[in-house]
Amino acid sequence: MNGSESNGLDHLFSETVRETMNASVYGAWRSIRDAEAVPLSFGFPYPESFPNEELVSAAESLFEYEGDRALQYGGGEYADALPEVIVERARDRGMDCTTSQIHLTNGATNAIDTACQTFLDPGDTVFVEAPTFMGALRLFRNYGVDIEGCEMDAHGLDVEALADELEAREAAGAALPKLLYTIPNFHNPTGVTLPEDRRERLLELAETYDFLVLEDDPYGQLRYDGAEPPPIRALDGSGRTIRANTFSKTVAPGVRTGWIVAEESFVEQFDRINAGGEPSYTRGLIARYAEDGRLDRAIEELCVGYRERRDRMLESLAERMPPGTTWSEPDGGFFVWLEFPEGIDAEEMLPDAIDEGVTYLPGSFFYADEGGTRNARLSFSHVSPAGIDEGIAALATTVRAEASAVEADD
Amino acid sequence: MNGSESNGLDHLFSETVRETMNASVYGAWRSIRDAEAVPLSFGFPYPESFPNEELVSAAESLFEYEGDRALQYGGGEYADALPEVIVERARDRGMDCTTSQIHLTNGATNAIDTACQTFLDPGDTVFVEAPTFMGALRLFRNYGVDIEGCEMDAHGLDVEALADELEAREAAGAALPKLLYTIPNFHNPTGVTLPEDRRERLLELAETYDFLVLEDDPYGQLRYDGAEPPPIRALDGSGRTIRANTFSKTVAPGVRTGWIVAEESFVEQFDRINAGGEPSYTRGLIARYAEDGRLDRAIEELCVGYRERRDRMLESLAERMPPGTTWSEPDGGFFVWLEFPEGIDAEEMLPDAIDEGVTYLPGSFFYADEGGTRNARLSFSHVSPAGIDEGIAALATTVRAEASAVEADD
Repeated sequence: MNGSESNGLDHLFSETVRETMNASVYGAWRSIRDAEAVPLSFGFPYPESFPNEELVSAAESLFEYEGDRALQYGGGEYADALPEVIVERARDRGMDCTTSQIHLTNGATNAIDTACQTFLDPGDTVFVEAPTFMGALRLFRNYGVDIEGCEMDAHGLDVEALADELEAREAAGAALPKLLYTIPNFHNPTGVTLPEDRRERLLELAETYDFLVLEDDPYGQLRYDGAEPPPIRALDGSGRTIRANTFSKTVAPGVRTGWIVAEESFVEQFDRINAGGEPSYTRGLIARYAEDGRLDRAIEELCVGYRERRDRMLESLAERMPPGTTWSEPDGGFFVWLEFPEGIDAEEMLPDAIDEGVTYLPGSFFYADEGGTRNARLSFSHVSPAGIDEGIAALATTVRAEASAVEADD
Repeated sequence: MNGSESNGLDHLFSETVRETMNASVYGAWRSIRDAEAVPLSFGFPYPESFPNEELVSAAESLFEYEGDRALQYGGGEYADALPEVIVERARDRGMDCTTSQIHLTNGATNAIDTACQTFLDPGDTVFVEAPTFMGALRLFRNYGVDIEGCEMDAHGLDVEALADELEAREAAGAALPKLLYTIPNFHNPTGVTLPEDRRERLLELAETYDFLVLEDDPYGQLRYDGAEPPPIRALDGSGRTIRANTFSKTVAPGVRTGWIVAEESFVEQFDRINAGGEPSYTRGLIARYAEDGRLDRAIEELCVGYRERRDRMLESLAERMPPGTTWSEPDGGFFVWLEFPEGIDAEEMLPDAIDEGVTYLPGSFFYADEGGTRNARLSFSHVSPAGIDEGIAALATTVRAEASAVEADD
């Protein structure tokens, strides 16, 4: 990653870049990405899920309808209408909002970054779930903030532990958070969902201790069981919640179009500092594609495909994994979070797993500091049900061998 | 713009946002955008220039060739190949570079912002041409830097005036620039091109005073007369030049895909902090579209269309404008820069011009501080040659009436 010769100009980097420039975030990814093994590592949608033909026909009809507006600055009627499409869909999920509360972004990553740029100063404190989405950790690090992990349990963020931590910090005169980042639905990497009463309690704490809640919900519509709790943004009467979302998981990653729902006064600043460019053609394409219920039908089909994969992964884990390994049972999303038997280090075991024919992401990747050494994130989104079974079989073999080696050492 | 009620949470914005949040940058744009008049204001490509059908067929063949890779994270072979397409085209323009010196962005705005985020700390000083692209001014303001305008003449940045300014600052212990932003080809808004000897001198100064050069070149390939001077980046042996570019003017604004050419050690940091998301589908589409010389043919056709428009604007100005008005004669790009007779304020005259049937952008929009009150930017890129003539006729009528009123006041 940092292989180039320095050109003697490093002193010109900004302070934050100089402090963080040697952080090699993606080094280990390459070996995982390039492995010849069943990929249970990355949260990629399964190949058959992509609307190739639909996007070609959306392009045709977009050009037919809009002519030379579709590719112009600002785009045509469909690009203009995308915030309305988003507002209607948000209303269906219990959020009463208007287009002046919507800021379009280039995907969820860009949405998180926009919130960072708007609210964070170097030295601020950001609370995240421990573990959390590593891409968000990477972005927060770019802003020179202190990142603190919050305890989680089987129902997500442990809000009472959070309350204790906040109280202790206040009593000690320690830094309170400016912002808390949470993935409330089908959490990445653990798969768990935060119940409504915890969402309410989190908002109480946000008001008491005056911090913002950044609610990241890329997976919320991919639910295979149970009823959806209200979005945190929908429960928030104080306007502190910034909700980030994306079409990457419901249309396709390649279109990289997302949005934020937030207070109008926040959205004005997001718009003002916006520097992502406006890919108006893609926005028009998505709005055209979403018309006539096509996106809703696609989401229904995706849920069928992902449910089958999740079921197969859980069945296969139950059938094949040696005793001592436990895992989460998500109601939706892409991920299952494993805990291996004591003595196993998931990062150290990875090369063996790859040799055996499967990849995963070690749990330590998802922690700001230490943690997750016994954990792994498995993604059931990418491969076929048969492939999932094959991958879990390889993982079970690896864990069994590793556990024997650990026992032999004792 | 800032019409919403405050929600009592403004204290949570970052310091820079709090300092700049009331800057209403785009207020005046609305009246210009929505005017029923010949639009000589914005640098939009002319409607017939867009490759609608070619993009549909590029989408079809992309999906045919790549199948389910085209919409996946990272994209397929064509998205992967876009940096190679850029490298080959850069070599044709005299820049010897490799793909490790290319960072892809979501358009030129995102490229400038990436450079800002990587190099600028609050309180740094940034030099810009006076006048300069207002979108860049907007971005620099987001980073809490001091923006200083540098003198220009008929050949662009006045490098000897710059040398004097730098010397004076050094002698006085005043702040030296961290970065100088320049648009060397067919400058926005003046249309002028910086000669090779000035490019060399600028680089000398950059080395002596240890600053970076941000070379923004969205229009360089749209040349209608004369030979192209080498890119600043190509002349730079010290690695201080960060070159930003975009397909917005050669493919279409709606695709919003751009890139940076810079030292590998810089590109590593751009990649590391990158938060724009990767619109891999659009990238694949452009690489597919650019294949087989199609992009080069499109640029040739664009040059024919724009040359005709530029010629018509210059002819029409010569024929119709009252004495006392002068203008630049660009060899390429989109813009002509006017200076009106003494006593005319271009911003004040704008409503009359709109009533008469034409829009322009007042020169003051392009200055960090004061300046440009007698100037206007006209864009010949957007309307037909006949429309241009109509617009210039309306402008001439407006100026004539305004000049008479000024005289009557004297």
